[in-house]
Amino acid sequence: MQAEIIAIGSELTTGAKLDTNSQWLSRELSAIGIPVRYHVTMADDLEAMTAAFRTSVDRSELVLITGGIGPTLDDLTRQAVAGLADVELVQHEPSLEIIKSMFALRKRDMPERNAIQAMFPQGSEPIPNPRGSAPGISMQVQQTGGDAFCRVIVMPGVPSEMKRMFQQEVLPGLSGSGRVIRHARINCFGVGESAAEEMLGELTARDRDPEVGITVHEATITMRITAHGDSEAECHGKIAEAGQTVREKLGEFVFGVEDEELEHIVVRLLCERGLTLATAESGTGGLLAHRLTDVAGFEGCYLGGVVVPTDAAKRELLDVDDDLLKQAGSISAEAAAAMAGGCHRQFGTDFVLAITECPWFDPDDSTGETPTVYAALVGDGIAESASHAMVGDPAIAKSRAAKMALNLLRLKLLAMD
Amino acid sequence: MQAEIIAIGSELTTGAKLDTNSQWLSRELSAIGIPVRYHVTMADDLEAMTAAFRTSVDRSELVLITGGIGPTLDDLTRQAVAGLADVELVQHEPSLEIIKSMFALRKRDMPERNAIQAMFPQGSEPIPNPRGSAPGISMQVQQTGGDAFCRVIVMPGVPSEMKRMFQQEVLPGLSGSGRVIRHARINCFGVGESAAEEMLGELTARDRDPEVGITVHEATITMRITAHGDSEAECHGKIAEAGQTVREKLGEFVFGVEDEELEHIVVRLLCERGLTLATAESGTGGLLAHRLTDVAGFEGCYLGGVVVPTDAAKRELLDVDDDLLKQAGSISAEAAAAMAGGCHRQFGTDFVLAITECPWFDPDDSTGETPTVYAALVGDGIAESASHAMVGDPAIAKSRAAKMALNLLRLKLLAMD
Repeated sequence: MQAEIIAIGSELTTGAKLDTNSQWLSRELSAIGIPVRYHVTMADDLEAMTAAFRTSVDRSELVLITGGIGPTLDDLTRQAVAGLADVELVQHEPSLEIIKSMFALRKRDMPERNAIQAMFPQGSEPIPNPRGSAPGISMQVQQTGGDAFCRVIVMPGVPSEMKRMFQQEVLPGLSGSGRVIRHARINCFGVGESAAEEMLGELTARDRDPEVGITVHEATITMRITAHGDSEAECHGKIAEAGQTVREKLGEFVFGVEDEELEHIVVRLLCERGLTLATAESGTGGLLAHRLTDVAGFEGCYLGGVVVPTDAAKRELLDVDDDLLKQAGSISAEAAAAMAGGCHRQFGTDFVLAITECPWFDPDDSTGETPTVYAALVGDGIAESASHAMVGDPAIAKSRAAKMALNLLRLKLLAMD
Repeated sequence: MQAEIIAIGSELTTGAKLDTNSQWLSRELSAIGIPVRYHVTMADDLEAMTAAFRTSVDRSELVLITGGIGPTLDDLTRQAVAGLADVELVQHEPSLEIIKSMFALRKRDMPERNAIQAMFPQGSEPIPNPRGSAPGISMQVQQTGGDAFCRVIVMPGVPSEMKRMFQQEVLPGLSGSGRVIRHARINCFGVGESAAEEMLGELTARDRDPEVGITVHEATITMRITAHGDSEAECHGKIAEAGQTVREKLGEFVFGVEDEELEHIVVRLLCERGLTLATAESGTGGLLAHRLTDVAGFEGCYLGGVVVPTDAAKRELLDVDDDLLKQAGSISAEAAAAMAGGCHRQFGTDFVLAITECPWFDPDDSTGETPTVYAALVGDGIAESASHAMVGDPAIAKSRAAKMALNLLRLKLLAMD
């Protein structure tokens, strides 16, 4: 069974509002093993809707439609479904009574326009809506040039009404395929997207089961593993096996799973070992501290930090030598080490991470020098460093620099075991 | 001219990721008077993509496609566009050189897979990508059974790359409908959404021109003004008039326009007056410093800060008195003032902003006390404070606390004039 999801509303196609219903429904369908191939969003336009519904009905076995069943003049989804099936709209007396009684409960007369919400395409069935005045619509629609049918389900566009209706009224009737789909994610840092794919070899081949896809977000590379099976256990088995292979091939580039970011891992590793950390930031301007303090339980290891974006602050707060800043430059491995050293004297923690300014990549710069950001890790008897050439998207430069510093500490902590 | 937008990616149809590109592009097209009738989202499936591209090309004059032009095996958009136009992929030598040179800048060899990003459907044109390795694709594709053509534009799925490419390379070549739509935004802080609506009166009535809508994002209230007209001048006139009314009614709650946030205003006001600032943060953990250092030119006024999430750090870095932390508590107006005072002695800036911990609202707490976050503003002869009861969404608590501190300084600077 293939499904697709259609969202109706001019406020969506103009960009005034963001459709989140389709994502939510995709997850629900995916969880019971029904793959979603398309999302379609369209304006409240009867002709366009009728044509697009036909395209969807002919290529899918299940079409979920949200929106356009309110009482106002621009709500045209029920008319489009009737047009699609080439039937009339007929009044459904019990639905009309329910709608009238909802208004009575609020001590108001039903506005005449709301009667349209009790009109249904002939041959369809109303889906009760415990949270609002618009019942949904369920209908079997014949595919073009065949005996096959597509099931069309129309639900309200209001997310809370739609979700309730889907979970209570629609989901129990979807058998799914009997097939189960499960997803898992493995997160890596320090390797590029295409290099990761090369290392994974045929694991990322198309049409493999489980399928392994690669996505990148702010320099974190994520392997998405998707397994199909007859049971959850079968999917989990496949995911475990593929995950094992990913870990073997990518080694210490792998740092976490699912929503885990580097700061979660670093806080966990530090807390487990009873070790403490402070930070000194220039270019990341507090981003590293902010990420660390966003991790639950950070107080067990992260004591605090300084933000020293100016040379004056580096001198005054961290005692960084003025000559060093002049000679090596404030964007240098030496400056990073001096910042970390100064912060280490202040906080007395087991570790200090420091990050220099993040220079911007200027495509017009003809000096041939690649702007580079430096990080330093300092502790008793420990002085390590990392650097990264700042080419690529400047919007993620700070995030990448913070991650580089966290990864330096992560690798050190793992190497200490 | 009718446009539609297609987003490619299995991570979108499975619901793993939310497509925000289509909304952003819709807004951009709407601003130049090009209506968008459809959004389509589909998995990385060559056959499905080619078929869906054909449907779109035949019903629209402009099709914008995002995603699926990365270097990995599941990136199939270029192949689908070639299939749509029934042409081969051919190598574009200058693009290959650019991609190679981007890797050379990072001192890495180009993985062989990346060469695919220099392959283009015959007859198409590459669109330069200053932020990433994947150039876009621009191609005229003939509609079925006619002489008419549809312009197909393919851009990367990474939002920052896509936006830059659209604004710099695509937008200048698009001409709109003649009818002009313009938007403007006015940003406020310190007033609630419904209170702002009440203050604005009939200005927010539906079907008014210009239309004024209210949205809220992390405690910033934004009035979106949308004007329709035959010319840009007509729209700007309508927007100026409505904007004037908003400013009269909301007074000093209004702090900026468009993308301006409180930190932009504070940096500008400080720099204009030649005044300096440092920060001391507990609960916001560096977020305030991070936001300030994200403003271009912050070096002219923001010298740096400390992140002191633990009481130990407050004592050691800022000399905050232990008895004060015990008696008044570390979440108190007194603690905020003491943090600010300690930071003021360290940095010697004209102003210091300090923020205490952000306590979480616990619905099961029966003490009846509302958890509150405190901010202090200290300078020579200046000692002001603000506090906020943490009852809303905990996910925005830190952001709201940072804004409260910035707003305290903004109002002080305005009052000094």
